[in-house]
Amino acid sequence: MASSQRLRAAVAGCTGYIGMQCVALLAAHPGVEVVRLLGRSWAGRRFSDAVPGSRVDLLVSDGLDPGAVDVVFAALPHTVAAAHAQQWIDGGVVVVDMSADFRLADAGEYQRWYGTAHPAPQLSERAVYGLVELARERLRTADLIAAPGCYPTAALLATVPALRAGLVEPRVIVDAKSGVSGAGRSPSLGVHFAEVNESVRAYGVDGHRHGGEILGRLRLEADAEVSLTFVPHLVPMTRGILATVYLQPRFGVGHDAISGVYREFCDAQPCLRYDERPPPTKSVLGSNVAAVNCTPQGDTMVVTVAIDNLVKGAAGQGVQAMNVRFDLPETSGLATASPWP
Amino acid sequence: MASSQRLRAAVAGCTGYIGMQCVALLAAHPGVEVVRLLGRSWAGRRFSDAVPGSRVDLLVSDGLDPGAVDVVFAALPHTVAAAHAQQWIDGGVVVVDMSADFRLADAGEYQRWYGTAHPAPQLSERAVYGLVELARERLRTADLIAAPGCYPTAALLATVPALRAGLVEPRVIVDAKSGVSGAGRSPSLGVHFAEVNESVRAYGVDGHRHGGEILGRLRLEADAEVSLTFVPHLVPMTRGILATVYLQPRFGVGHDAISGVYREFCDAQPCLRYDERPPPTKSVLGSNVAAVNCTPQGDTMVVTVAIDNLVKGAAGQGVQAMNVRFDLPETSGLATASPWP
Amino acid sequence: MASSQRLRAAVAGCTGYIGMQCVALLAAHPGVEVVRLLGRSWAGRRFSDAVPGSRVDLLVSDGLDPGAVDVVFAALPHTVAAAHAQQWIDGGVVVVDMSADFRLADAGEYQRWYGTAHPAPQLSERAVYGLVELARERLRTADLIAAPGCYPTAALLATVPALRAGLVEPRVIVDAKSGVSGAGRSPSLGVHFAEVNESVRAYGVDGHRHGGEILGRLRLEADAEVSLTFVPHLVPMTRGILATVYLQPRFGVGHDAISGVYREFCDAQPCLRYDERPPPTKSVLGSNVAAVNCTPQGDTMVVTVAIDNLVKGAAGQGVQAMNVRFDLPETSGLATASPWP
Amino acid sequence: MASSQRLRAAVAGCTGYIGMQCVALLAAHPGVEVVRLLGRSWAGRRFSDAVPGSRVDLLVSDGLDPGAVDVVFAALPHTVAAAHAQQWIDGGVVVVDMSADFRLADAGEYQRWYGTAHPAPQLSERAVYGLVELARERLRTADLIAAPGCYPTAALLATVPALRAGLVEPRVIVDAKSGVSGAGRSPSLGVHFAEVNESVRAYGVDGHRHGGEILGRLRLEADAEVSLTFVPHLVPMTRGILATVYLQPRFGVGHDAISGVYREFCDAQPCLRYDERPPPTKSVLGSNVAAVNCTPQGDTMVVTVAIDNLVKGAAGQGVQAMNVRFDLPETSGLATASPWP
Repeated sequence: MASSQRLRAAVAGCTGYIGMQCVALLAAHPGVEVVRLLGRSWAGRRFSDAVPGSRVDLLVSDGLDPGAVDVVFAALPHTVAAAHAQQWIDGGVVVVDMSADFRLADAGEYQRWYGTAHPAPQLSERAVYGLVELARERLRTADLIAAPGCYPTAALLATVPALRAGLVEPRVIVDAKSGVSGAGRSPSLGVHFAEVNESVRAYGVDGHRHGGEILGRLRLEADAEVSLTFVPHLVPMTRGILATVYLQPRFGVGHDAISGVYREFCDAQPCLRYDERPPPTKSVLGSNVAAVNCTPQGDTMVVTVAIDNLVKGAAGQGVQAMNVRFDLPETSGLATASPWP
Repeated sequence: MASSQRLRAAVAGCTGYIGMQCVALLAAHPGVEVVRLLGRSWAGRRFSDAVPGSRVDLLVSDGLDPGAVDVVFAALPHTVAAAHAQQWIDGGVVVVDMSADFRLADAGEYQRWYGTAHPAPQLSERAVYGLVELARERLRTADLIAAPGCYPTAALLATVPALRAGLVEPRVIVDAKSGVSGAGRSPSLGVHFAEVNESVRAYGVDGHRHGGEILGRLRLEADAEVSLTFVPHLVPMTRGILATVYLQPRFGVGHDAISGVYREFCDAQPCLRYDERPPPTKSVLGSNVAAVNCTPQGDTMVVTVAIDNLVKGAAGQGVQAMNVRFDLPETSGLATASPWP
Repeated sequence: MASSQRLRAAVAGCTGYIGMQCVALLAAHPGVEVVRLLGRSWAGRRFSDAVPGSRVDLLVSDGLDPGAVDVVFAALPHTVAAAHAQQWIDGGVVVVDMSADFRLADAGEYQRWYGTAHPAPQLSERAVYGLVELARERLRTADLIAAPGCYPTAALLATVPALRAGLVEPRVIVDAKSGVSGAGRSPSLGVHFAEVNESVRAYGVDGHRHGGEILGRLRLEADAEVSLTFVPHLVPMTRGILATVYLQPRFGVGHDAISGVYREFCDAQPCLRYDERPPPTKSVLGSNVAAVNCTPQGDTMVVTVAIDNLVKGAAGQGVQAMNVRFDLPETSGLATASPWP
Repeated sequence: MASSQRLRAAVAGCTGYIGMQCVALLAAHPGVEVVRLLGRSWAGRRFSDAVPGSRVDLLVSDGLDPGAVDVVFAALPHTVAAAHAQQWIDGGVVVVDMSADFRLADAGEYQRWYGTAHPAPQLSERAVYGLVELARERLRTADLIAAPGCYPTAALLATVPALRAGLVEPRVIVDAKSGVSGAGRSPSLGVHFAEVNESVRAYGVDGHRHGGEILGRLRLEADAEVSLTFVPHLVPMTRGILATVYLQPRFGVGHDAISGVYREFCDAQPCLRYDERPPPTKSVLGSNVAAVNCTPQGDTMVVTVAIDNLVKGAAGQGVQAMNVRFDLPETSGLATASPWP
């Protein structure tokens, strides 16, 4: 890419919720030109016909010439992107994978959580986990970026600062609440308006894939064994995740020391915001911000983190990582404020 | 009351959400006649004008002759009902108090949580905490019934069975999610549709009155010191509470032993339902049922309990206690099923 | 049926939204015993496993012995019930058909709206359109009852009183707003929470089947040609229909004369309620009531009617018709009030 | 203002919904610097403390030096802005008034709709009605811009093209559906989540101020008498207005001629979008776009227009008018696409 030019970007899987959010962000990004949209079910038709409210008129196609693009956002089902990734990378393309294929700290766990052998184990080592706040330097040279899952984004930002600093016990409870778009765009009874509206419920209590992702990353960050309980919940709203994390301070550690670590961590990062009160998810809708609060209750430190699951929890996070990778301003093309209400 | 007659009931504070739910249930109760509605702001006007969808045409008045009623449901702000309770009881009326005045296991804590001295300490000993599943026998002779708070109802039903049986550590985390009606009918920015819709947030993290209520009851039930972390959340729905409770089994205790205790507990109670999966709150809307599920995750036992905050969490619970008190069928006038969706 | 016994009822298509609402109402009906549930996709499993919150534990089966039941509620896709109706009627069963098969005033229009020849034209003449408020006497001897569609229920109750009385021009505009459950339980992109939440849209503007149903009935009731414009809208709520109807008074007809006709009409009917202000749909949720208001604006009379689309707009209406048919109290098993909020 | 500098903008009434949307848009506008925020109730505190999700840290103050700003957005209750407008204009400031004070085509109607004499009749003639699509040229020299109401914006864009072209009868029915934010930020029972969620209702049927505004503008645009019926409805969503407009083609006018006029009108305007199907309001959320569709049904032409009531219906429209007034690109600082979902 010549420095005077804009990045040429493609989005694969462009008509799912994450894919279409990638398109929306990249199309409005001052340093990017969206040159190719891929999507099997919509191939041959215009993107703006698949996505109400879009003004991106590109035809959706079904195939990519790696020479024509600098970066691919792969918003595909797990195993699908992995099958293409090697070829794209060999063609000199930076791959931002929105799927789960390269997220697990230990690829050997893939079989357990995804029920099949890892589709591209040779690439696993090469992939950089794209939570910018934790891995900015490694991202600068990455050619395969694994964009974190939505729950892990919120859970890790809520947990890692205290855990890295050794201020809390390595025993973590994450009670997370997600809007319905986190389940993807495919119709099912589980996302039928009349089934989920006016209702909240826990799911995946006996084991959710994002629990495996979170735990692996926590172990790496703490460089120690960690115990994790992770319970996701479905909440009747379109977007947003709130992670409520329960941490036990180590003996002798004061609450102010812990919240101080979070304040410093947030102040140093353009996409984090420390709030004096627990943040409502609405306060980050549409933005790439994770809002963080620490409030003690008795012995326990309660950390809450709010994100937009499709932005900071997915597409925006991918753009943020791309910005770092290509030495663009980290928040370029990304909102860091959110209109209320 | 002659046995051939219907109970004569009054509702004080009839135009708040709990009061109007009391009226709706009592008006449809085959063993009850609603004879008096009290409410200061609406005095002199008809109840059905204050409450859309009601067909109860009684005038709302502002004063009660104890001789005219057998039971009063007092859905009043805290301190207000307590000021009347002695007189009503002296008049031979059974008082079902929906406020917090007589809920605390230790009335000495009232000052701490409610910021004022207890308005009727002499009555505190006399009050019976009206969670029928835990106190059925004591309720049969009660003349002052303290209907539990909405969060405590869900939290206690989720915790007490295992704690009483000595199967879990006395260290409890309750992450609770409530619909907006739990905040009452008074307008405020905190219940404005545009502020709370499409958003979830934690609140009261540094201390919520219902935490004090829950903790006091847990100590009594466990007959031991208990550690409690209680974090309530506001969810964009009108009704419903889901309590997600994290319990640590005692050494050597298996998950089946714990879930077995909950199954037995639920099977023995007409207003409890054990679900094989975590219950959505929608599955209990409008009913007086608490739905319960236990699912282990690693070492932790995750117990979820769903209720309708205005029925099992308030008015329905009061009616259930009244039924027990007056030797009516426990579910008389109460739905134990819920239409879907 | 011996008069001392309860009606034996079956529900076919019991796991769709209308079918499960039929089951919920019939199971709680004091004069009915639900003896058989039919449903192909769920055959062999228990009803309560298909429908959260239900306590009806019957097995769902796939076949019906007409001798075993007095009444069948057929909540099946159009053409399916019609294929069975003759056999059921011949077996002495009263059929309450919730589908569209026997609703059209002119069965010859079936091909146009449903794209296939009418599946049982010989039965069309026999069917009685089950809008009780308009056809009570004819229902007393019916053996095939066509329960009206949800939109037609609201639209006809809003229009027929003035039209019958000759007070308004035969030119009717119906702007109707429906909750999402009206689209049925089958998953599709059109009922995906994330697609329909926080959004309102018109649909079927160039022709909706319920428009044909409404127009046919209006012609019959007015005994004249009528012009109808009918535009349905999808609103982000689970239940409820509001029909806003624009009527032009005939020359010299005063507004009071028109609203007087509606007041009288409502006063004479146990399932209608005249409200002094335009009714919110929430005020009839879960009840079999249609709430009606007339308010003039300039020359135009604006009539609004609110119903619960699954109760008065479907299952409740069917039960009401069954009550009339079997000489039970008209509101038996039906709520005529609605708890707020 | 020197051409090399950014416009200096102030927002008065900055903590209401329209005011805070003005701040959000202006703060992100490349040609504007927000230099002053006014608000009585929040004076002395930081804006970002009043508005979750904002990163605008200006102190809210209570007084304005006209010399310090080029443009004031006055998002104040009616009569309040008018009291200041003369002074601001005299100080050389362009006033974009978001209130109703200068919207009525005939100021003499102010008393009727607002119950008080017009607070600044001498300015009424001077004000330009800021619906850019209808008044672009007049806005280029305006010093007092009356930003249209939210309902009128949708209703006029849906009606004026056909009316101006003389293709339809001057008899217009507007059935409009609005999200709750249209009622403003002040708490009341009418915006309480539990009262308005899961419900739709008509209001203001006997006369709504926006009806007066619409009618006045229609008469001006048609240069003839027009009959208008306008019924607004409250829908359970935060943002969005859908206007469904029923028009009668003049004798001999074909549907294609009418829809052709709308297509042309939309194609020529950067903030209009012609959709082939009726637009869902979600497709314009957060954007300054009005989406338009015409679909015939029998004799009637049904025109639907969707807007975000706080953007194209208020703050965004004001910014668009400001852009025109100061010769900035018309969509500068305004989104013309909307992320889905």
